[in-house]
Amino acid sequence: MPREVRERQMLDAAVEVFARRGYNAASMDEIAELAGASKPLVYLYLRSKEELFSACLERESGALLAAVKAAVDPGAPPDRRLWAALRAFFAHTAAHPAGWAVVSVEARRHGEPFTNAVAAMRQEMVGLVARLIADTAEACEHAEAAGLAHALVGAAESLAGWANAEPGAVPSAHDAAATLMNVAWVGLENLLGGRSWTPPGPGPHS
Amino acid sequence: MPREVRERQMLDAAVEVFARRGYNAASMDEIAELAGASKPLVYLYLRSKEELFSACLERESGALLAAVKAAVDPGAPPDRRLWAALRAFFAHTAAHPAGWAVVSVEARRHGEPFTNAVAAMRQEMVGLVARLIADTAEACEHAEAAGLAHALVGAAESLAGWANAEPGAVPSAHDAAATLMNVAWVGLENLLGGRSWTPPGPGPHS
Repeated sequence: MPREVRERQMLDAAVEVFARRGYNAASMDEIAELAGASKPLVYLYLRSKEELFSACLERESGALLAAVKAAVDPGAPPDRRLWAALRAFFAHTAAHPAGWAVVSVEARRHGEPFTNAVAAMRQEMVGLVARLIADTAEACEHAEAAGLAHALVGAAESLAGWANAEPGAVPSAHDAAATLMNVAWVGLENLLGGRSWTPPGPGPHS
Repeated sequence: MPREVRERQMLDAAVEVFARRGYNAASMDEIAELAGASKPLVYLYLRSKEELFSACLERESGALLAAVKAAVDPGAPPDRRLWAALRAFFAHTAAHPAGWAVVSVEARRHGEPFTNAVAAMRQEMVGLVARLIADTAEACEHAEAAGLAHALVGAAESLAGWANAEPGAVPSAHDAAATLMNVAWVGLENLLGGRSWTPPGPGPHS
């Protein structure tokens, strides 16, 4: 079997085991067994548990980012682009719950350098959404577009975590994307059109 | 000095040191020094680094939840309640950056039982927002209100993390709350009024 096929099987197994047991409790024995490989071969190809985990993070965060980017047609209008990005995000996280658990939960638990790979991916997501918002509204100030992008990415992450934690209680990836799109886009359009919610004026409780 | 005053000083110092160094690198020596107490006294009152960290999480997540709850007047209309909750959330996280770092970053890094205290607080936040959305719209289905609440809490967490990470580049707590309120509330009102963004119909790219 070619090495790249073997390595892919090992990474598939490792993502499952890291998601199921957590990084600390995950054993190389279980990963090797699930991959149908010998433990020495896993060490030969991927060197250590730490490097294996890093490889999982890189692959899973790269795949998520690639799925979102591939879904976005640069020539489409901004609302279609955002919709495509949200659908791709929720579809990918729903289809790869172990990968999403590793990227969103396990990576954070174990500090640098693991958090760095995921932070870079997240930063790219935020940048993608911020450009999209800025394209929609040239009038939109840079800081506001960045803030909205951070809010939207946080909202999507939180929804994806909830959807994967309680799959029965939750709408499909399509419904989650539609709900978020509705609130974000309709709110954004109104905001840009000047129809904003006005904070109450000064007063003891304002 | 009364024990409760001493303990408060120790917790204040511990929150600062945990936020600055991370749980693993934080030393009881530094915490004791910053608290102006002897290390044996810190151990006498708070027993271990683990229990000290738990006490910090409990205090900080409790304070954030209490600040949000106290800001909400149950008799006010829903938009005023949401606005008050968002303002209180952003004001509290901005005023207590170390506390927010401990609750939002450090707790996640170190697994159970630390994550449980924070998850319980987050669950209560989501419940509070979901009830608020359900009050706004009796027509709103339970799953949709829960989804919106998860999205909004995730958006707020993400914005607060960004605001504390790059304080210069970012709007004030008031501005962050207003931006999120605008998008969420205006989007929500439109959604409930039936003016929703419509996903494109079936087709190869829909």
